[in-house]
Amino acid sequence: MTKSERKRALRGRAGRMKGGRGSGRASTGNVRLWGRHAVEAALLNPDRVHRKLWATREGVESLDGELPQDFPIEYADTPDLDRLVARDAPHQGLVLECATLEDRLLDEVLDEADGRPLVFLDQVTDPHNVGAIMRSAAAFDAAAIVTQDRHAPPESGTVAKSASGALESVPWVRVVNLARALEDAARAGYWRIGLAGEAEAVLAEAMPAGPVALVLGAEGPGMRANISGHCDALARLPITDRIESLNVSNAAAIALYAIASRSGA
Amino acid sequence: MTKSERKRALRGRAGRMKGGRGSGRASTGNVRLWGRHAVEAALLNPDRVHRKLWATREGVESLDGELPQDFPIEYADTPDLDRLVARDAPHQGLVLECATLEDRLLDEVLDEADGRPLVFLDQVTDPHNVGAIMRSAAAFDAAAIVTQDRHAPPESGTVAKSASGALESVPWVRVVNLARALEDAARAGYWRIGLAGEAEAVLAEAMPAGPVALVLGAEGPGMRANISGHCDALARLPITDRIESLNVSNAAAIALYAIASRSGA
Repeated sequence: MTKSERKRALRGRAGRMKGGRGSGRASTGNVRLWGRHAVEAALLNPDRVHRKLWATREGVESLDGELPQDFPIEYADTPDLDRLVARDAPHQGLVLECATLEDRLLDEVLDEADGRPLVFLDQVTDPHNVGAIMRSAAAFDAAAIVTQDRHAPPESGTVAKSASGALESVPWVRVVNLARALEDAARAGYWRIGLAGEAEAVLAEAMPAGPVALVLGAEGPGMRANISGHCDALARLPITDRIESLNVSNAAAIALYAIASRSGA
Repeated sequence: MTKSERKRALRGRAGRMKGGRGSGRASTGNVRLWGRHAVEAALLNPDRVHRKLWATREGVESLDGELPQDFPIEYADTPDLDRLVARDAPHQGLVLECATLEDRLLDEVLDEADGRPLVFLDQVTDPHNVGAIMRSAAAFDAAAIVTQDRHAPPESGTVAKSASGALESVPWVRVVNLARALEDAARAGYWRIGLAGEAEAVLAEAMPAGPVALVLGAEGPGMRANISGHCDALARLPITDRIESLNVSNAAAIALYAIASRSGA
């Protein structure tokens, strides 16, 4: 969808904001998003049901006319917005309350993936890292990120801010059993590479020609044994011993770049 | 220096903590560091003058005996430590007050660089990003990061925590004039590559065989024109149009990986 198509879709939806959800989806609740990129992307996302936008004049101006003229806005001052969001959240004069996104199913994502990378996160709980990984996933055209329900942050303003808009475009699949999801990906033709500092092979050596599912664990403990047991290969990034490990979002960015840059990709 | 050599050096210094600086260096002040990796690395850094360690029992245990037995510790409870650091700072039971590190000079760094990469940051002000870039700089054996005094965060607990120990090992050069520093790097044989989303060449095409100075601007505005004018080449990372840009620390990590992975490197 082009930006103008998205804008048209958005105009068609603005009315729904007043009347509730307007769709039969099973929304699990509301979430407050903030920051220009996160709010703009959420406003342009036809799958996002919007409740209310609080904004400063400057915040609305920063949207560069992306907002339809009839879109209901509650103008507010910066200190008012400060109270609507997490402490010290850099809201940039824009706070959007909206419904959480509808759950995405792995089967559906696999059907549409067309060989694009998948990113599996095992117990990556920091919302900044999950958001930053989503941003890199969008940048390198990943088909989805997959997390395990009990060991991942919920959809939140912090995730959305760190994702800089990518929360709206990268399908986020939450599963009950990550190991089983890895088996499903393998059946769909994915080669599962787990990043592990102790692996013998470096990533470039472990790279197949076909579709890759990248698996990352939490910083420190890494992947759980049960998860690394469901990988086809373990690989490490070629880092020096000056540091124990990379930040997990930086490791994900590098691996997604390496996947996208394969000769033959 | 091996870890045990560092430990010996540390033991030799512990006494200085009581008596003040113990060196003629022009310290600009004190800083509080927190979190296991940041504190452990600072304790093991012979160039760091330590003032005081506040810690929980669990915090001290997490150091795995890295702390000399005679090192003075003030035991405290978690809520006490909470009050010593920034709001919500994840201190992991360890807060170290110490002197800020001595300034590093670019000439000195260039003399010792031996062709290893340099990272120039133009107006990257977020301390989390600067810290994460330091961590990646250590991971890919960069010789230093270089920032401009007025447009960079000060040394802080947040930088140190995000750097996960790398603040102690990656020289941080602060200059008054970043453009002039780029000229100095060129004279020392560095090829200066500025990352810019609007560049025509992708990074892999712009890569020389010799030493690289990587130049990154702030997210959003990017490098200032005066800075990009002091680059030998501008290059972009091969990202999709699903997102406007990468997070700057993720872009730095990818570029450092690409530099380290050059055929012939």
